[in-house]
Amino acid sequence: MRGPMSAVDVGVALLGYGTVGAAVHRLLVESGEEIERATGHRLRVVRALVRDPGKARSFPAGEGVLTTDFAVVRDDPEVTVVAEVMGGLEPAGTYVRELLRAGKPVVSANKQLVAREGADLFSIASEAGVQLRFEASVCAAIPVVKVLRESLVVSNVHRVLGIVNGTTNFVLSRMERGGTYAEALAEAQALGYAEADPTDDVSGADAAAKMAILASVAFGSRVALDDVETRGIEDVEPAHVAAAAELGMVVRLLGIATLEGGAVDVRVQPALVDRSHPLAAVDGAFNAVVLQGDSIREITLEGPGAGGVETATAVVADLVSVVGTSGTGFLQNDACWRELPRLDAGEWRSPSYVHLEVADRPGVLAHVTSRLAAHDVSVAQLVQHLGDGDATLDLVLHRAPFGAVSRAIAEIAALPEVLRPPFLVPVVSERAL
Amino acid sequence: MRGPMSAVDVGVALLGYGTVGAAVHRLLVESGEEIERATGHRLRVVRALVRDPGKARSFPAGEGVLTTDFAVVRDDPEVTVVAEVMGGLEPAGTYVRELLRAGKPVVSANKQLVAREGADLFSIASEAGVQLRFEASVCAAIPVVKVLRESLVVSNVHRVLGIVNGTTNFVLSRMERGGTYAEALAEAQALGYAEADPTDDVSGADAAAKMAILASVAFGSRVALDDVETRGIEDVEPAHVAAAAELGMVVRLLGIATLEGGAVDVRVQPALVDRSHPLAAVDGAFNAVVLQGDSIREITLEGPGAGGVETATAVVADLVSVVGTSGTGFLQNDACWRELPRLDAGEWRSPSYVHLEVADRPGVLAHVTSRLAAHDVSVAQLVQHLGDGDATLDLVLHRAPFGAVSRAIAEIAALPEVLRPPFLVPVVSERAL
Repeated sequence: MRGPMSAVDVGVALLGYGTVGAAVHRLLVESGEEIERATGHRLRVVRALVRDPGKARSFPAGEGVLTTDFAVVRDDPEVTVVAEVMGGLEPAGTYVRELLRAGKPVVSANKQLVAREGADLFSIASEAGVQLRFEASVCAAIPVVKVLRESLVVSNVHRVLGIVNGTTNFVLSRMERGGTYAEALAEAQALGYAEADPTDDVSGADAAAKMAILASVAFGSRVALDDVETRGIEDVEPAHVAAAAELGMVVRLLGIATLEGGAVDVRVQPALVDRSHPLAAVDGAFNAVVLQGDSIREITLEGPGAGGVETATAVVADLVSVVGTSGTGFLQNDACWRELPRLDAGEWRSPSYVHLEVADRPGVLAHVTSRLAAHDVSVAQLVQHLGDGDATLDLVLHRAPFGAVSRAIAEIAALPEVLRPPFLVPVVSERAL
Repeated sequence: MRGPMSAVDVGVALLGYGTVGAAVHRLLVESGEEIERATGHRLRVVRALVRDPGKARSFPAGEGVLTTDFAVVRDDPEVTVVAEVMGGLEPAGTYVRELLRAGKPVVSANKQLVAREGADLFSIASEAGVQLRFEASVCAAIPVVKVLRESLVVSNVHRVLGIVNGTTNFVLSRMERGGTYAEALAEAQALGYAEADPTDDVSGADAAAKMAILASVAFGSRVALDDVETRGIEDVEPAHVAAAAELGMVVRLLGIATLEGGAVDVRVQPALVDRSHPLAAVDGAFNAVVLQGDSIREITLEGPGAGGVETATAVVADLVSVVGTSGTGFLQNDACWRELPRLDAGEWRSPSYVHLEVADRPGVLAHVTSRLAAHDVSVAQLVQHLGDGDATLDLVLHRAPFGAVSRAIAEIAALPEVLRPPFLVPVVSERAL
């Protein structure tokens, strides 16, 4: 029930009261004392915007709290801070804009909204002088936004590596134990790790939205979703996974954001990761983000990247931070304060891995290596397996501009001895490649 | 040079101007813009307390900043916040107390001071209504205190696992590649990872201080240094490392803090860790902390746990947080708000590993297993190697009260067939042991 407010109470409104919204409410009620100890305030849900107030809820909203009318939420003077947990671009975007303009701080769990419309939302928030926090929009309970914005203020983070999609990580981990991509995906679907339509995950689109947000925060420059070069895991084959194992590596869908020479590159694509690298140990549906910077070397955060209560935890943490810092101007500004050019996609440098299936003819290795040499790409490791008249070549290539590597591989693909399109991905390694 | 203060300036004093102090100053100068964007303020070092103002410094303090007189620091009205980076219990403890009583927020990098005198310091800070932050006192740049206090407010963290000492982690990692404890330690010393007198590290004392701080923050209850049951790595032998490898595990010095049934247990000791566990992948001198809680499952933070500039980064992050939240009451209170009883040491439950060297006589295995059974301890895995008249037994034991396991092993140690004192440590595994 919505009782009278006391002096320490801070009124919270929820936009949406589904799994995450109900979990936020439950955490606020059950952990009221912890929150009051930290902030000096009780956070009380006084309004929750829903479409159907009659629907059953996993945690009751309280009498008089549910409403279908956004204006009731916006105009309620008891509402001090708002958590947007409804998802979708509209009407969420319109609501968040109106609330910010009305001077209400907003906490959003909406990855698509922040990734696509962040620039506009933050300029509205800055103008209104209110906070817009978004920890829950990326990697659920892993506090990567807070760490970047508050702990690493002076660290000049210049590289972010992330396993930020649990579905693809599960599928690729599963393929290591044998089986095709299709089989691993079917198992992920059966276990509830993948949707019936898994396109958003396996295409890399979900990871791209998260990397756009993380790169924007890490580099202080807006990275739009369209700036993220994205490739999914659909063409990863058992042969690639097996070859990676032979090379002491695993295949993972990686987000890689780089700030180099004042320019930004953000990409999502399959990559080979050294088995000794912390990212190789990230299990199944977990997420992990590696932050590399001047004064910290490398900090890795790992945890559950999805889940209702995990996401709700991040929403509550943001609410606590808003309440705990309001009136100070702390982090009131847009995290993005500069415009950085995009690095020419071909200029991004990385070690790489290529899998070739070739006819077992004299001279094929010389043809392949001469094409690489012509583009100044040198070979770090080579594993050859002979089949029945054909052969596979697995090459680890030293660090080089990815555009030059791609051009060399395109020429190799056109060789008459090359039987199938090559598979080319970056390599993440702590060795000097 | 100490110029005139501007309206946005916040005066900072440093207690100590050694490696960390100079690095703090450099970060504040070089990242002044980033800090101003985050907080609205410039942090300017106006005083630095040193013993010898004439000493060469890696980053100049500025004219008129260095002083040998603590009263000058304490009484300077321009000093708004103080970073204690001098180390040692005294006079640091006296200075911090005086500053807190004078209403100055303090940021401390002093592990021993926070671990030993935290209770008193926090009560003074609470009474004075000022903040005392201490991120840099534990695991350098890894923002584990901030994450616990601000992101996981509502997560009921009930277990903390940590590799919090780089020296011992380097030594144990090195032993996996062959060699004795003494050889690995000598190499660590040659590479600068271990001190000439390594006692504080190898005995577990350094890790115990960090775990006392982490457990206090995680569980909201003061854990004194004496409450931490501590055992070092001095008796880890190549045979244990080899047996661990055979069992798919590695030996690590682990801090393990547990909140169970309303009681606390904190211990530091060698343990076997499953190779698939995130902690097994922590390399050489890095640190990692695993936080397990109700609403987050498990969050792991990994990074450099030591180093001058890494520690300075954490000090600056705390200064930024103090400035960014001052006047709000946010986190102004002691993180410890309850008194929890200590779990009876013997009641702490864990799977465990024991290495036995026995005479190869009929019945020895029956004697060993019957002693375990008599204490309700059951065997999960057993590896036996026969030597020349003797044998080694490596056993992984299912989860049981560690006191019962210790008693069973003490009885086994007394068997005439047992040739050497057994080696007994806990096991950390994601399997159901």
